[in-house]
Amino acid sequence: MIVQSSYGKSRVRLVQVLRQPDRHDLRDLTIAIRFEGDYDASYADGDNSAVLPTDTMKNTVYALAAQRAVGESEAFGLRLAQHFLDRNARLNRVRIDLTEHAWGRIPRGERQHGQAFMQAGSGSRTAAVEAGRDGVSVSAGIADLVVMKTAHSAFTGFPRDQFTTLPETRDRLLATALTATWRYSSTDLDFGPTWRAVRSTLLEVFAEHHSESVQHTLFAMGQGVLDAIGDVDVIHLVMPNRHHLPVDLSPFGLENRNEVFVATEEPHGLIEATLARGGPSPS
Amino acid sequence: MIVQSSYGKSRVRLVQVLRQPDRHDLRDLTIAIRFEGDYDASYADGDNSAVLPTDTMKNTVYALAAQRAVGESEAFGLRLAQHFLDRNARLNRVRIDLTEHAWGRIPRGERQHGQAFMQAGSGSRTAAVEAGRDGVSVSAGIADLVVMKTAHSAFTGFPRDQFTTLPETRDRLLATALTATWRYSSTDLDFGPTWRAVRSTLLEVFAEHHSESVQHTLFAMGQGVLDAIGDVDVIHLVMPNRHHLPVDLSPFGLENRNEVFVATEEPHGLIEATLARGGPSPS
Amino acid sequence: MIVQSSYGKSRVRLVQVLRQPDRHDLRDLTIAIRFEGDYDASYADGDNSAVLPTDTMKNTVYALAAQRAVGESEAFGLRLAQHFLDRNARLNRVRIDLTEHAWGRIPRGERQHGQAFMQAGSGSRTAAVEAGRDGVSVSAGIADLVVMKTAHSAFTGFPRDQFTTLPETRDRLLATALTATWRYSSTDLDFGPTWRAVRSTLLEVFAEHHSESVQHTLFAMGQGVLDAIGDVDVIHLVMPNRHHLPVDLSPFGLENRNEVFVATEEPHGLIEATLARGGPSPS
Amino acid sequence: MIVQSSYGKSRVRLVQVLRQPDRHDLRDLTIAIRFEGDYDASYADGDNSAVLPTDTMKNTVYALAAQRAVGESEAFGLRLAQHFLDRNARLNRVRIDLTEHAWGRIPRGERQHGQAFMQAGSGSRTAAVEAGRDGVSVSAGIADLVVMKTAHSAFTGFPRDQFTTLPETRDRLLATALTATWRYSSTDLDFGPTWRAVRSTLLEVFAEHHSESVQHTLFAMGQGVLDAIGDVDVIHLVMPNRHHLPVDLSPFGLENRNEVFVATEEPHGLIEATLARGGPSPS
Repeated sequence: MIVQSSYGKSRVRLVQVLRQPDRHDLRDLTIAIRFEGDYDASYADGDNSAVLPTDTMKNTVYALAAQRAVGESEAFGLRLAQHFLDRNARLNRVRIDLTEHAWGRIPRGERQHGQAFMQAGSGSRTAAVEAGRDGVSVSAGIADLVVMKTAHSAFTGFPRDQFTTLPETRDRLLATALTATWRYSSTDLDFGPTWRAVRSTLLEVFAEHHSESVQHTLFAMGQGVLDAIGDVDVIHLVMPNRHHLPVDLSPFGLENRNEVFVATEEPHGLIEATLARGGPSPS
Repeated sequence: MIVQSSYGKSRVRLVQVLRQPDRHDLRDLTIAIRFEGDYDASYADGDNSAVLPTDTMKNTVYALAAQRAVGESEAFGLRLAQHFLDRNARLNRVRIDLTEHAWGRIPRGERQHGQAFMQAGSGSRTAAVEAGRDGVSVSAGIADLVVMKTAHSAFTGFPRDQFTTLPETRDRLLATALTATWRYSSTDLDFGPTWRAVRSTLLEVFAEHHSESVQHTLFAMGQGVLDAIGDVDVIHLVMPNRHHLPVDLSPFGLENRNEVFVATEEPHGLIEATLARGGPSPS
Repeated sequence: MIVQSSYGKSRVRLVQVLRQPDRHDLRDLTIAIRFEGDYDASYADGDNSAVLPTDTMKNTVYALAAQRAVGESEAFGLRLAQHFLDRNARLNRVRIDLTEHAWGRIPRGERQHGQAFMQAGSGSRTAAVEAGRDGVSVSAGIADLVVMKTAHSAFTGFPRDQFTTLPETRDRLLATALTATWRYSSTDLDFGPTWRAVRSTLLEVFAEHHSESVQHTLFAMGQGVLDAIGDVDVIHLVMPNRHHLPVDLSPFGLENRNEVFVATEEPHGLIEATLARGGPSPS
Repeated sequence: MIVQSSYGKSRVRLVQVLRQPDRHDLRDLTIAIRFEGDYDASYADGDNSAVLPTDTMKNTVYALAAQRAVGESEAFGLRLAQHFLDRNARLNRVRIDLTEHAWGRIPRGERQHGQAFMQAGSGSRTAAVEAGRDGVSVSAGIADLVVMKTAHSAFTGFPRDQFTTLPETRDRLLATALTATWRYSSTDLDFGPTWRAVRSTLLEVFAEHHSESVQHTLFAMGQGVLDAIGDVDVIHLVMPNRHHLPVDLSPFGLENRNEVFVATEEPHGLIEATLARGGPSPS
């Protein structure tokens, strides 16, 4: 018995150049499309009569981009979703995932080149559109925003059992590669400015927070977004704890005044939570 | 309001050597531990009084391995889960994910070296234990088993719209990197032989099936496992379609008799389904 | 017969925090150390009496960082190289490779946080020190600086044989992930400002150049550095050609006005050259 | 002044299927082509009149594969090199690098499926052909062959300085991801059997050797190949030391009887040497 199924196309790479006389604009996206619907006959019987080829999904991305400029990721996702729902009767639900590869302009003295670009820093912008016969929801996100703070981060007061060796600390490095996704309460937003406002809030709270743990800071960041951005109604945050271990210099007759660290990626802590607008948390 | 949260430790690397006089045995695992429970105070208030450090989780992996040989991944996952549930009152649910890095023995003429190993082929063995106050479930899986068939694979009869350019074919290459996970109906199984039987069935059906699509073969593989292995009650399969495109040799005055292909990874199709023991699928 | 040998330690991860009252500074480095010398007895006879353990090399990195602030990568490489040469009689030649992971400060309104950082954009700063009994040389570089230009890039006038299908174009996208390394004529430079001047020159020439090919632009960039920065006497540039292919929209009855592209990484062109200060090239 | 330059195409992916009635054979290769020659005018002046497009290089791979079965990597590299030298007057030297992605057959009871394959284990087969106007050389290799031995590996007798903390050990794990390349004395060999003989020798010596260090075992492996395979005249070996650290269990009141280890990849030792047929090494 088929309990659940989906099929689609992943890693469709689209670059669009918009050419104004004195400057070009770039959209550089990786797109995934996923169909759910009444396709059991293709699985059970090899009947492809309703199976839009994933190759056609890919072609559709390029054709729709050619018909009208891509614009914001969320808007392009909505166009793609609507296109597929309109033309595929067996399709119940389509999901479009879009990751934007950000480019900045190469500086030209005090100004900027109009037609030359360099890849921007960490933290890709992501978007997801999920559309069904009964409605559509738009989410956005940021992937792998690498941040570190060197003050105002502690971890104390935790329980100790027979296998606990970790010392308490009031002053550690806190580093993570934040991935956050949030759902909008509307599909008709100014997506670009809203995304930038969420990103700024996440960075600002991370920087300012007096952290008792990754959990504590993650909650403050998520709550900060819910407080500041009315169009966000749910936010999910994932924060690996990229440990920076103070080096034991005592065998060399040296003191480590909390200055020399080994950066590690393996193993790492992994903290996640989903926060929603609503009553106080039940603690 | 915290809707959901978890925390834990990922990528704990454990190698255990069991030393018999004339041969050694190896277990090489990457382990992740995830706690869910009544930890809202740590998020909202920075209260760590119930937060077992993830460093302690890591230490526990090594300590339990030292107390008794790791054995099968599923069994070690069960031991870890029970240990954490017994000692952490606020913990409601713990998940242990284990990936095994398989080693074979280096050959020695017709025989094998007892103490020298080489990494085995594609397709890691995975296991997952989820345990709560109300019970425990054990899953197993295989990750990234790369397979290809060069006969008995077609894709025809699909709908064509204005963006469809894909030709129909009765004879294409079908390649994928299979990831499958399945849930066992019991926690008291001979996990090793059962895993090998599932893997054999997946490979056998993939090789034998007359495929009308990736969906069609995926279903046959999943159904084949449910039919052959009574201890599996649900199976989830993910099969990216790693397209191999026939090269157009006509500009060079050459014919491609379905022999020369470009292997691609981007973009790729992505097909998933979950099958359960039960009535006929509703097609 | 041993023709050549080396041994050392790779991927030593060092983070140093310098703590001033109102702001911290970060150095985040990955370091590799390589020894060449009279070590044949360790290979041929298993005689380790002269083999400084690579674990000690790693410890030395942390100890020297603790003794005095790391400073510029090149300067720290020089300190490490000298330390090892002074203490290891069999060591003839030591190479230190340093890659800097750049962090920017998180903005705080118009200003910046003193103790909170985010990972900076593409293009890591690299440095290499090679020191022997007869002298030392310092190189610097930039790795994986991802850039694209959407104007002033052509590829025409190339020879055509029976396997050539590529159309000529006067207006294509030109994208690369530049890796450059250059050797300094002195070991006593203001390494930071010099590195930034080289990087600016590379970006500026890439943006301004009227390109007839990747080769043509690579040469202009390298020559631009030699012309502008007197302390550089040799520069090596590697530029993969990350092709962006215009999508053929004609099957959909649409025109591609050089606006819609597929970004690809495989296969890619790969162009390299080494330029030195000196007479005109022999063309 | 251009001191050195090259250009070419990397990551050309070729799969060839040879179809016999009851079984198919697969060749799955990633190929890189590099040209060196009198191309300075393309760099300095943007003159492309002699620059065979890298796109044509890629097409040539597919066309030559269609004209005649690829066969052994080394033989196909020789055909490609000759083709390019014959048709490009400015080309002085061409290098073809080939990596083979090995596939085994899916078992079918005691036998094997003729048309269904699974990816084989670690250690890719590589080949390189370098051809100039004055001759040609053929090399072969193996990349990333991951091996471990759990006995007969020691590291003692090394010098200790003020930063040395490493304990001596007569019984440690020795693990590496071997990459080796060797040059053949002839271009007319039975390349497949010779490659398999080199690989067997490397594995056999690794397994049997009583190791005083990675250096010691690397030398024995290289010397073993030179002794056993007369057609190899130079061999280069690279062996990262993938450290497996015994876990300190004493804080938990447990003993580690050399059984429980943390596998690490960062940092790692890195040992290299080139051995040639010839007189005794000068130790």
